[in-house]
Amino acid sequence: MAGTDHRRRAPGGGPAIILVEPQLGENIGTAARAMMNCALDDLRLVRPRDGWPSDKAVAAASGADMVLNKARLYPTIAAATADLVHVFASTARDRGIVRREVTPRRAAIEMKSHIAAGEPCGVLFGPERTGLLNDDLTLADTVLTVPLNPGFSSLNLAQAVLIVGYEWYITGSEAPSETLHTGLSRPATKAELLNFFEHLEEELVRNGFLRNPESRPSMVRNLRSLFQRAHCTEQELRTLHGVVTAFAGPRQRSKDAGLG
Amino acid sequence: MAGTDHRRRAPGGGPAIILVEPQLGENIGTAARAMMNCALDDLRLVRPRDGWPSDKAVAAASGADMVLNKARLYPTIAAATADLVHVFASTARDRGIVRREVTPRRAAIEMKSHIAAGEPCGVLFGPERTGLLNDDLTLADTVLTVPLNPGFSSLNLAQAVLIVGYEWYITGSEAPSETLHTGLSRPATKAELLNFFEHLEEELVRNGFLRNPESRPSMVRNLRSLFQRAHCTEQELRTLHGVVTAFAGPRQRSKDAGLG
Repeated sequence: MAGTDHRRRAPGGGPAIILVEPQLGENIGTAARAMMNCALDDLRLVRPRDGWPSDKAVAAASGADMVLNKARLYPTIAAATADLVHVFASTARDRGIVRREVTPRRAAIEMKSHIAAGEPCGVLFGPERTGLLNDDLTLADTVLTVPLNPGFSSLNLAQAVLIVGYEWYITGSEAPSETLHTGLSRPATKAELLNFFEHLEEELVRNGFLRNPESRPSMVRNLRSLFQRAHCTEQELRTLHGVVTAFAGPRQRSKDAGLG
Repeated sequence: MAGTDHRRRAPGGGPAIILVEPQLGENIGTAARAMMNCALDDLRLVRPRDGWPSDKAVAAASGADMVLNKARLYPTIAAATADLVHVFASTARDRGIVRREVTPRRAAIEMKSHIAAGEPCGVLFGPERTGLLNDDLTLADTVLTVPLNPGFSSLNLAQAVLIVGYEWYITGSEAPSETLHTGLSRPATKAELLNFFEHLEEELVRNGFLRNPESRPSMVRNLRSLFQRAHCTEQELRTLHGVVTAFAGPRQRSKDAGLG
């Protein structure tokens, strides 16, 4: 049974996104877009209401044709999930049945680990109006619920796929949560920063701003702390030196003219 | 100035969602839905292309009317962010300018902690086609980028709002991972920061530093971006005003003496 030999799937692929009886072609297209946003490409369709292929899906997918072209059609959820080892059922509803329920984040962590172990995963999404039926849920081992405002939790199909895909995409990625982009320049060294402080403070003594010996230490501390927090680049420090020089220049000239 | 007194905002509210020149009413409506999904209710609109109120927005919001009814209209980003202390700019693009960039998850953690400290936050979203301009980014202190498939990363407006809101909604109210201690002062509002920019730039035009019209826009952007990143307090801005005034004073005198 080739269809159930899950070892045939390319390793490292993401989970299959399985749309159960989707009603509108547009929604299949926007779901394909959301998949592509998240580098997912295994789209499976169970009895799409308006048939397949769908021009409306292609139009709505604008650019995610690759996902649509690869999409496969199945007569039942059982057939669509036959080669999978772990199946999550996405639903917003409390069905009153016994099940294991996870958040998209938890599901993403589990799927990463399953897929790394060679165990293919998939996520079921129900029809737009009704969602998955209780009988559909019995074909999944885990329920996946997006934790949202309880009074207003319904998402459209593409949004639900996007949240699941987004969590999949960012889970375990090495990407830092914070980056300082410095363009063509590089972060300034502390020596360069001190050099700027000295330039600035020298001019501030000269123009009188730091003349009061009582307030001077705290003024200097405040200014230094402010520029430390900005994490300046070397280029920005050169700009700041230029600012100070531009300000100080006329002062020098005015002093020369006896006005200082 | 009631408009800049951020302590007036009700505690516990979420970040403001600021749509900059949104083109289609439908997109404002679906963004409002996404906000409601995530229990956000402070929608601000800067120059919506097709006017306001919008029947198309109401139709697309289906059920999120409450968010639309409360929406406020502003002529500029500066006006829309005047009462905020922390502003994130949502953008997918690499702009080649120096900025601090965070993921939606990191932004959510930071906003939770800022808002708990009584410091209002907001997130800017650009027009559908073009996104935010570089000049718009200088009105934010941090760039927010959703880490997605680099080859296919564009999200529609409602999806971008949903991801930011989803991370906001699920981020626990655990202890903040990062705090800025501001001593006896308070964080400056964006209106106060803009006021300093204007003072600084006026004097830099006067002393010739910004005289070259070709390099001027990027010079201004670089300086603004640097001070945005520093997250100045109100007291520090007063010190900076003093610095600029101290520098500018003699220049004025030297001009009076015919040396300018």
